[in-house]
Amino acid sequence: MQTLPSLLAKINDFAAKNPFPDSPGALYEPCDYILTLGGKRLRPALLLMGYELFRDDVDRALPAAWAVELFHNFSLMHDDIMDAAPLRRGQPTVHTRWNTTTGILSGDVMLIYAYRFLASFDEPATVPGLVHTFNRVATEVCEGQQLDVNFETRADVSIPEYLRMIELKTAVLLGGALEMGARCAQAPQADAQHLYHFGRLAGIAFQIQDDLLDTYGDPAKFGKQVGGDILQNKKTLLVLKALETASEADRLELSRRMQTGAENPDEKVAAVRAIFDRNNIPGLILAEKQRFQEEAFAHLQAVQVADERKAVIRQMIEELLVREF
Amino acid sequence: MQTLPSLLAKINDFAAKNPFPDSPGALYEPCDYILTLGGKRLRPALLLMGYELFRDDVDRALPAAWAVELFHNFSLMHDDIMDAAPLRRGQPTVHTRWNTTTGILSGDVMLIYAYRFLASFDEPATVPGLVHTFNRVATEVCEGQQLDVNFETRADVSIPEYLRMIELKTAVLLGGALEMGARCAQAPQADAQHLYHFGRLAGIAFQIQDDLLDTYGDPAKFGKQVGGDILQNKKTLLVLKALETASEADRLELSRRMQTGAENPDEKVAAVRAIFDRNNIPGLILAEKQRFQEEAFAHLQAVQVADERKAVIRQMIEELLVREF
Repeated sequence: MQTLPSLLAKINDFAAKNPFPDSPGALYEPCDYILTLGGKRLRPALLLMGYELFRDDVDRALPAAWAVELFHNFSLMHDDIMDAAPLRRGQPTVHTRWNTTTGILSGDVMLIYAYRFLASFDEPATVPGLVHTFNRVATEVCEGQQLDVNFETRADVSIPEYLRMIELKTAVLLGGALEMGARCAQAPQADAQHLYHFGRLAGIAFQIQDDLLDTYGDPAKFGKQVGGDILQNKKTLLVLKALETASEADRLELSRRMQTGAENPDEKVAAVRAIFDRNNIPGLILAEKQRFQEEAFAHLQAVQVADERKAVIRQMIEELLVREF
Repeated sequence: MQTLPSLLAKINDFAAKNPFPDSPGALYEPCDYILTLGGKRLRPALLLMGYELFRDDVDRALPAAWAVELFHNFSLMHDDIMDAAPLRRGQPTVHTRWNTTTGILSGDVMLIYAYRFLASFDEPATVPGLVHTFNRVATEVCEGQQLDVNFETRADVSIPEYLRMIELKTAVLLGGALEMGARCAQAPQADAQHLYHFGRLAGIAFQIQDDLLDTYGDPAKFGKQVGGDILQNKKTLLVLKALETASEADRLELSRRMQTGAENPDEKVAAVRAIFDRNNIPGLILAEKQRFQEEAFAHLQAVQVADERKAVIRQMIEELLVREF
């Protein structure tokens, strides 16, 4: 069993040994660029951990793990164009540093390279099943992005619709990474399914936490501007819950504040937080997160593998889900 | 052995039985839309013909054939954004009818669906090799598009560079379709390679012919505005050949005319054509096309299969390459 740092070292070593071609530079440089912006390599680590639950020869799973990381970065590159995002992790996005054509085409070739690594798994008969899982999840990620785009111009998004959107856009890829790791290891079908749901449900809990941290996180630890969602009038889970459960006066004030910009940003963040606070929105959202988290770990529990093999993955997910507020 | 119309009927029947999901409509409707703009289904037909050289049960190869058609339409959808093209086959392009976000995301999901069909081939052990060929060609198509983008802002494109660009951007996919058909049929490696080169070289000849037709085609048969490339100042093979071989006075006049718009379009087309004519450019280009065409058919000849099995594919490619001027 490998520790997380040891798995991350293997992933980065594999990436270094499997670079993109040098030419055409205009096509491949942006791929290298986005991959070095400092992502956590969470998804490939999950795939390797899913594999290591069942087998020790984890190096075999590295091409599939890297495929998942390439897919993730492809989707970031294209999403950044669609969201007109100027920055990613504090650096210019690809379409900002180069242009939209580059963002589209370099993203496309990254997706193709993801399949290239996926199909290079050393057991050919396993490849169709791997590609099948990958495609199912990749399609859902596109559908989730489409729902997110649709929601921007809709005033009537419900909480179940919002949860479905974050499930598709983000959570299924975490589950899919674990499932693919299990498939590479020829794990029993039931275990692969439990791991998928573990990752999927933990992913939803993680996204709910992300919404909470954006408004209630410790500025020193959060890494982004606290209150950013409020200033962008984003329909986060906090907003949807407040619009559903707050007093009528607070609902009206929240709606009014979300239709305007902020002359005084600090005042706006404080006022919206006050609405959330007096309607116990953080408590309700935290309870929602807790439900997904508990359901997630029940699926990990159900995987038919000795508990000590689950220690590394359990620890990583717990650390991700127990951030300080 | 099936005729071309019979193969096309099979392809369209397969497409009708394997539609995109209904929801989210904003994601999948543009995929249906571009597929119904009236493409010739040349690439999937080539894949099926490659298969039928070796085996009769061609229905098995339909998912792979449809994968190639989806890839082709994915690349059209993204290229149209990059080229800011308002029309495709006389109808609004996807990003024009919807928007750029739609063009990117619907294109992405079409590419993922291409792999979905490819990986569903009924012999799992063959899938990695199929995906490998598909990826090799798909990567080259992206590289070709990148070279085409690069060439727009370069004044010093050579003829070998131009030929390499059209080879990557267009021709390798025709060769790849034939090669994948042969692989589905478990054809000998040498035959699969000959078929790849047959399609690749015929594809280059076809693109050269396309450049010629744009300036010298019969307006009644060509389907596009004759002289369009001249009016757009496109660096086609005719232009590159003229800049390389024409008299100095003609080279200067051509360069000058390509740096300006056209107050009188008919006059500009006539003047540039006159430069081409008095320097025998059409004859030189036709000879170039002929060389690729002959080399292509030598590869078809080398495939170790009875001549009568090659009749359908030979006839289709000959008809594509013998257009009237």
